[in-house]
Amino acid sequence: MEINLNLLGYVATTLTTCAFVPQAVKTICSRDTRAISLWMYVTFVVGNAVWFFYGIALGSWPIILSNTITFILAATILSLKVRHG
Amino acid sequence: MEINLNLLGYVATTLTTCAFVPQAVKTICSRDTRAISLWMYVTFVVGNAVWFFYGIALGSWPIILSNTITFILAATILSLKVRHG
Repeated sequence: MEINLNLLGYVATTLTTCAFVPQAVKTICSRDTRAISLWMYVTFVVGNAVWFFYGIALGSWPIILSNTITFILAATILSLKVRHG
Repeated sequence: MEINLNLLGYVATTLTTCAFVPQAVKTICSRDTRAISLWMYVTFVVGNAVWFFYGIALGSWPIILSNTITFILAATILSLKVRHG
């Protein structure tokens, strides 16, 4: 069985990128951030930024696009956490 | 300025993998999962599993290792979310 590696990579990228959509929606709607870890999202947002520059340096559109989307979602959750505690 | 791409990749991987440690610790200690999105962690755990198989197919140890760690952390948070609602 020949695995289409590109397809597998795009499916994995789409899942781990879109995963942050339900959390962003839930947090925007509920404003409840108590159970969310501030340090998770600080670390994750910084990590996304590094992945973004890695994608730029590599000239890889999938890495640039997925990390731009995840950065925006994670930064939204982080800003709500900072504001609502 | 010559950017060490490998180093950039390892830094990004370490940050986005370790980001889940503070959330796992906070959730294990507090048992408070109300603000955490169930669908985020269901999607993320599935995405991690796909990344893991992608790493196996590619024979890439960094992808295998980082996604094994993130899978364990995210699955821990998911199980607590399922148990505590």
